[in-house]
Amino acid sequence: MAEAEIGVIGLGVMGANLALNIADNGYHVAVYNRTVSRTEAFAASAGELSDRVTACATLEQFVAAIRPPRPVIIMVKAGEPVDQQIAALKPLMQANDIIIDAGNANFRDTMRRFSDLEGSGLTFIGMGVSGGEEGARHGPSIMVGGAEEAWRRVEPVLTAISAKYQGEPCAAWLGENGAGHFVKTIHNGIEYADMQMIAEVYGVMRDHLMMDAPSMAAVFSAWSTGPLDSYLIDITAEVLRVHDAATGLPIVDIIVDAAGQKGTGRWSVIESQMMGVPATAIEAAVAARSLSAMRDQRSRAEKRFGLPRQQERRDGQEAVNDLENALLAGKIAAYAQGFAVMAAASEEFGWNLPMQTIARIWRAGCIIRSRFLGEIATAFAKDPEVPNLTLTPAFSTMIEQTDASLRRIVAEAALNGMPIPALGSALGYFDTYRRARGTANLIQAQRDFFGAHGFERIDGNGAHHGPWGG
Amino acid sequence: MAEAEIGVIGLGVMGANLALNIADNGYHVAVYNRTVSRTEAFAASAGELSDRVTACATLEQFVAAIRPPRPVIIMVKAGEPVDQQIAALKPLMQANDIIIDAGNANFRDTMRRFSDLEGSGLTFIGMGVSGGEEGARHGPSIMVGGAEEAWRRVEPVLTAISAKYQGEPCAAWLGENGAGHFVKTIHNGIEYADMQMIAEVYGVMRDHLMMDAPSMAAVFSAWSTGPLDSYLIDITAEVLRVHDAATGLPIVDIIVDAAGQKGTGRWSVIESQMMGVPATAIEAAVAARSLSAMRDQRSRAEKRFGLPRQQERRDGQEAVNDLENALLAGKIAAYAQGFAVMAAASEEFGWNLPMQTIARIWRAGCIIRSRFLGEIATAFAKDPEVPNLTLTPAFSTMIEQTDASLRRIVAEAALNGMPIPALGSALGYFDTYRRARGTANLIQAQRDFFGAHGFERIDGNGAHHGPWGG
Repeated sequence: MAEAEIGVIGLGVMGANLALNIADNGYHVAVYNRTVSRTEAFAASAGELSDRVTACATLEQFVAAIRPPRPVIIMVKAGEPVDQQIAALKPLMQANDIIIDAGNANFRDTMRRFSDLEGSGLTFIGMGVSGGEEGARHGPSIMVGGAEEAWRRVEPVLTAISAKYQGEPCAAWLGENGAGHFVKTIHNGIEYADMQMIAEVYGVMRDHLMMDAPSMAAVFSAWSTGPLDSYLIDITAEVLRVHDAATGLPIVDIIVDAAGQKGTGRWSVIESQMMGVPATAIEAAVAARSLSAMRDQRSRAEKRFGLPRQQERRDGQEAVNDLENALLAGKIAAYAQGFAVMAAASEEFGWNLPMQTIARIWRAGCIIRSRFLGEIATAFAKDPEVPNLTLTPAFSTMIEQTDASLRRIVAEAALNGMPIPALGSALGYFDTYRRARGTANLIQAQRDFFGAHGFERIDGNGAHHGPWGG
Repeated sequence: MAEAEIGVIGLGVMGANLALNIADNGYHVAVYNRTVSRTEAFAASAGELSDRVTACATLEQFVAAIRPPRPVIIMVKAGEPVDQQIAALKPLMQANDIIIDAGNANFRDTMRRFSDLEGSGLTFIGMGVSGGEEGARHGPSIMVGGAEEAWRRVEPVLTAISAKYQGEPCAAWLGENGAGHFVKTIHNGIEYADMQMIAEVYGVMRDHLMMDAPSMAAVFSAWSTGPLDSYLIDITAEVLRVHDAATGLPIVDIIVDAAGQKGTGRWSVIESQMMGVPATAIEAAVAARSLSAMRDQRSRAEKRFGLPRQQERRDGQEAVNDLENALLAGKIAAYAQGFAVMAAASEEFGWNLPMQTIARIWRAGCIIRSRFLGEIATAFAKDPEVPNLTLTPAFSTMIEQTDASLRRIVAEAALNGMPIPALGSALGYFDTYRRARGTANLIQAQRDFFGAHGFERIDGNGAHHGPWGG
């Protein structure tokens, strides 16, 4: 009976698609869902893949259906449900079986689960999966954390189901314990920033340049043949082109402007704060989503302040070209921040994260896949120890080619009341980072004045306390 | 022997000054420090207050020196040392004795200590103290969290030692358990933002308007007679006026531009993230401090990019006037964010935080004391339920009077490469907040496209899934 080579628990959209993907790649997969009707519906939908799917009504049947040592992928809601699932599995499984949590776990939970399972004989893997429904079904990007030996045992199936970039699998072992889920969290944080910056550019086109959805769709389509070429730009063009059947209006115009969030953006910010590494573009994106949910307050504010007065508009094409460059410059800042946060975490948790590999497995399958990530992979290949992406030759050149546009867009947005908090934070980051002599000397003087914190002198090393009158 | 009315443990700058302040106000205080030499040095320095100070060499003597029920203030380094001190005190104290942690505790530690001490018969208070050395000695702002009944017992001494604003004590009970330390954390977060914005304005004057320290001192002095009138503006003028004895240079010019941080700024950001309430100005300030510490990287970046080209400068006085207004607008955003975070926390933790009282006890004693806080107190008195400070009549009028200046400064800074991340985030916050129709509709369309998250239609309530080609 034990004919399955792997199991999948949780048949929501992501789990079901992952199971079909596995079967598609020639593996026999056992599946289980707490609600039996969902398992049945899944079995019914498997079609020609049915002979490689064993649908199980109970967890006992499920475990019995898999050949030991059993790899079991759990794809359920992050948090408590994962712990419940592990607790239920534990007594049924044997030494060397592998539990793989493929949900969007907070990596700190993953770290805890590693400790909890230590000495149990079971092996644990924390695995980040990106690519949405489509990716799960036809090839996601897969970020693995755990013992390298455990990875070796599941590498064949995981590379088989992963996305391929020019034939190269977008699945990799990134480090011990929480490494995979940490990298997935930062992936999502970057995704927040990327989406927010696109939304800001869309806002400038819609509310300042007064463009309609089809015109904007054309702009995004044109950009997808240039340096911004990416999945997110592609789907932006696509959604802008779709019309609502009921009203005939562009569908974006009938969608409520309140964006949800599930936690990974916020976690990215919290972790970056814990490590003292700025992730201001991600922060701005998370804040923008929070503000988007405060619709009543925003309506009250608009009633009070009115809409901002618009200055004379520049030539449309010139402005659109600036927006393209500004978006590219903004992306550089967001990715530079995300990679810097990962570098700090790598140090802190002893993961030795392979930056180049991370960029490589993000080139296909995942939501932020793009030409740009290929350039990041190349930059890290040439200079693996660079402390910040903006210092690499390729990206510093790209900044020089685009920062003037970002400056003009930030200035124009400021004067016309267009909110571009993420793009603005990107510029603030560059301009702070590029200046050898900053202004924190004044802050140190103030802190010493009121708190006797002391300060260092530029001409000596000792700590000093100022001769304040006070 | 038990003649002291209160005790202080920890005789660092803050603890020592607090003890002298207590004695100054006619209370007999027992003091103790783990390192006996420090206790002796303190006793020797007490001068004419010596007869109201009992210096104790052991914790046993210390506890015996205080009349039960004993209020004991602990003023040691936040974190582990506080737990150690509590553990050491516990067996020596009696029912109804009060342990008051006056350090900069993370309020989550305070919450835990409340639970830990529950049922022990001891009473616990978490107390935020702001005002630096000077405040501790002559009157700090005091933010108390704990049982209201416990507050009543220590109210006389705490109001006596607190700062007074036009005769009104700047000490208050703010709510149960962690309320006091939470409010202190946000106080410090706001302080970070306030100081950062001042540093940004200083940067524009120094590096764009090419002003020297004495000229800048004159500007800050002038501002301190207007709406920016505050302790931080005053001391900025003062430090800018001081010259270094060794070199004859303005002392700010010989201070290293790397600012330290102790945790409260970061905690403010983390808590605001946990509650989904934007605190972008505080975030920008924390990020700026982190970047300030990366001096090597910044030098590398400046070598690579050079300093930004400066455009033609505007008339100095006109620019300085804009800077004053921009700083005021920026302050409004930072304080609006801080108070919004407190409102969310009040809800989350059931504290019922009194916003008006908080603003009132910040009007004197603490680092952010200002005329501005008086205006905030008035605004909350008139409209205690307002969801955001920017919606009050007084502050919305102030925004209308200043936002054009903030826009010009942000635009000018962007075009000239002056880093003003906190002021920039303030503008991004306003412009996002004041717009009833934002751009998150595009984000929801993208999320639905790749993740089947669904969206709401503006013409209906149901959740929908878009007719994407995909």
